[in-house]
Amino acid sequence: MIGLGDVYKVVAAMFPLYVALVLGYGSVKWWRLFTPEQCDAINRFVAYFTLPLFIFEFTAHVDPFKMNYPFVAADAISKVIIVVVLAFWAKFSSKGSYCWSITGFSLSTLTNSLVVGVPIARGMYGQSAVDLVVQGSVIQAIVWLTILLLVLEIRRTQTDFYSSDETVGDSKAADNSVKDLEANSRALAETKPSFWSLVKRVWQKLAMNPNSYACIVGITWALIANRWHFQMPAIMEDSILIMSRAGTGTAMFSMGLFMALQEKIVACGTSLTIFGMVLRFIAGPAAMAIGSIAVGLHGDVLRVAIIQAAVPQSITSFIFAKEYGLHADVLSTAVIFGMIVALPVMVGYYAILEFLH
Amino acid sequence: MIGLGDVYKVVAAMFPLYVALVLGYGSVKWWRLFTPEQCDAINRFVAYFTLPLFIFEFTAHVDPFKMNYPFVAADAISKVIIVVVLAFWAKFSSKGSYCWSITGFSLSTLTNSLVVGVPIARGMYGQSAVDLVVQGSVIQAIVWLTILLLVLEIRRTQTDFYSSDETVGDSKAADNSVKDLEANSRALAETKPSFWSLVKRVWQKLAMNPNSYACIVGITWALIANRWHFQMPAIMEDSILIMSRAGTGTAMFSMGLFMALQEKIVACGTSLTIFGMVLRFIAGPAAMAIGSIAVGLHGDVLRVAIIQAAVPQSITSFIFAKEYGLHADVLSTAVIFGMIVALPVMVGYYAILEFLH
Repeated sequence: MIGLGDVYKVVAAMFPLYVALVLGYGSVKWWRLFTPEQCDAINRFVAYFTLPLFIFEFTAHVDPFKMNYPFVAADAISKVIIVVVLAFWAKFSSKGSYCWSITGFSLSTLTNSLVVGVPIARGMYGQSAVDLVVQGSVIQAIVWLTILLLVLEIRRTQTDFYSSDETVGDSKAADNSVKDLEANSRALAETKPSFWSLVKRVWQKLAMNPNSYACIVGITWALIANRWHFQMPAIMEDSILIMSRAGTGTAMFSMGLFMALQEKIVACGTSLTIFGMVLRFIAGPAAMAIGSIAVGLHGDVLRVAIIQAAVPQSITSFIFAKEYGLHADVLSTAVIFGMIVALPVMVGYYAILEFLH
Repeated sequence: MIGLGDVYKVVAAMFPLYVALVLGYGSVKWWRLFTPEQCDAINRFVAYFTLPLFIFEFTAHVDPFKMNYPFVAADAISKVIIVVVLAFWAKFSSKGSYCWSITGFSLSTLTNSLVVGVPIARGMYGQSAVDLVVQGSVIQAIVWLTILLLVLEIRRTQTDFYSSDETVGDSKAADNSVKDLEANSRALAETKPSFWSLVKRVWQKLAMNPNSYACIVGITWALIANRWHFQMPAIMEDSILIMSRAGTGTAMFSMGLFMALQEKIVACGTSLTIFGMVLRFIAGPAAMAIGSIAVGLHGDVLRVAIIQAAVPQSITSFIFAKEYGLHADVLSTAVIFGMIVALPVMVGYYAILEFLH
C-alpha cells in the first residue's frame, strides 16, 4: 500500500512547480505587475532562451546508443494504437472527423515531459526514471511532433480548397456532396505533387521552432559525443546551465501568466474539458500500459512508462493548435486544467502502480 | 607563478556570465526581440522574483553564529578607511564635495557579490571562498546599503532647501554665502527633529526593495534555524530553488538588456570612467588589503578578501543613484564598463595574489 510518505514524495516533487505557476498567475491577476504586452516579453524570453537551452541540456546528455529500446518500443506501440483507434473512429463513426482525430492524438499522446515529467519522475523513482522520461521526450519532439505538424500542414492545404474549417466537418451533408467531390479531387490532384513542398514547409516550421531546434541540435551533439566518446567541456556546460537552470521555473511562471491572461480557465465547455481529461489521463496511460505489457516491461520501468504517459498536456501542442486554428481552446483548457488536476492524478497513479510487478 | 590552467579557471568561471549578458544584449541590439517596455518586464521579473529568491537562498544558508569574524572585521576596516579618506577629501580639498564622496563610496565599496562574485570565488578557491563572499554580501546589504540610503535621504532633505543639486556643489561660492547660511540653518533646524522620520523613510525604502527584503528575511531565517538547529524542509527549499536557480542567468541577461538600452556604453566621459574604474578595481581592493593585513588575515582568506573587493560594481548602487538623481551616469558606466573589463582584472588579481602568503 502507498503510505503518507509516498504521497508527500509526489507533493514535494510537484509543489515547487505550482509555486512558480502561482507566482506567474498572481503577478498578473493580483499584483498587476505586467501588462499583456509585457507578459509577451517574458513568454518570448522563455521560448527563445531558457526553454530551448533547458531542452538542449537534457537532450545532449542522452546516450542514443544506449536507449532503453523496450521502453521506446512500448511508447511507439501505444502511439500506434491511438492512431489506429482515432483513424477508425474518423472513418466509421458518424461523429468522427479528421480534425477531431488530430486533436485527439494531441490530447492523448503529447505531454509536458521535461518541465513537469522530469521532476515528478525524479521524485517518484529517482534518476533512472528521469533518463527514461528524457528519452521519451526526445522521441516525442523528433518523431511525434513532426508527424503532428505534417498532418496539420496537410489539413491546411486541404482546407484551403474549402471555404472554411466548418465545411470540412460537415462534408458528409448531402447537399454539399457534388461540390465536395469536385473539391476533393482537386485537393488530391494538387496535394500529391506538392508532398515535398509540404515536407519542406514542416521542416522550416521545425527549424524555426526553438524547442525542436534545441532538441535536434542536442541529439546531434549526443550522437557525436557518444560515438567518439568525448565530454562537453565544463565551460560550455556551464554557459548552457546558466540559462537552462532557469528552464523549469520560468516555463511554469510563463504558464501562470498564460492562465492569468485567459478569460476563463475552462475555455471550451465542460464536456470537451472532460473529453480532454479522459484522453490525457486515462486513454494515454491505458494505451501505454498495453504497449508496455506487449513488450514485456515490468518493475519500475513499467511504472515510469505509465506515469510519464499521464503527465499534463504539452504546451507545444497548444501552440501548434493555435497556429493552425484547430481547437486551440480545447488544448488551452487541457494545458491549464490538466496542470491543476495533475497532483491528485499523479498521487492516484503512484498508488495504483504500487500493485504492479 | 600563475599558469595557463589558472587563467582558464578564471575564464571558465566568468565566461557563462558573459554568455547570459551577450544574449540579453543581442536580443535587443541584434535580434530586436524586445521593445524597451518589454525589457522593463524582464527587468521587473528579475527584480521581483528571481533575484530576491536568489539572494534569500544564499542568505538563509549563512550561519550567523559561525561567521569568519576576522574577515568581517577586515571588511569593516576597509570601509571605514574609505569613508575617512572621502570625508577628509570632501572637507579639505578644493575639489571635494559631499555628493562626490557618496558616489566615491559606492564606487569603491559596493560590489555585485552574489551574481558575479560567487561564481568567480568558487572557480578560484572553492566552496569555502563562496561562504566568505556570501557573508560579505549579507553585511553589504544590511549595513552598507542601509547607510548609503540614509546618506542619500539626508542629502535629499538638504537639497530640498536649495534650488538645485548644483547649488550644493557650488555652495562655497562667495555670492551665495548669505543665502546659504540662512538655508543651512533652516535645514539643520528642520533636519534634526526629523531624523527619525528620515530613518523611517529609509526603512520603508529598504522594506520596499525586494533585494534588501530578501536579505533581511533570509538572515532572520538563518538566525532562527541556526539557533534552534533545524533545517529548511526539502519542499520549501525546492520551491525557492525553482526560481532562485534562474537568478544568475536572468540577472546577467537583464544587465545585457540594460547595456543595450543605453545610448552609449560610456555615458559619463573618459575621465569619470577612469575615476570609477580606479576606485572600483584599485582603491577598493587596496583598502581591503590594508584592513585584511591589519587583522592578520593570510592564505586563501586574505586572497578571497581582496578578490571579492575587486568584483564589478553593484547594480543596486546604480539603482539608488538613479532614484536619487546622483551621478547615475557614472554608476551606470561603472556597472557596464566594469563588467566588460572584469575578466582581465580578475585574471590579473588572481595572478598577483598567488605571491601572497
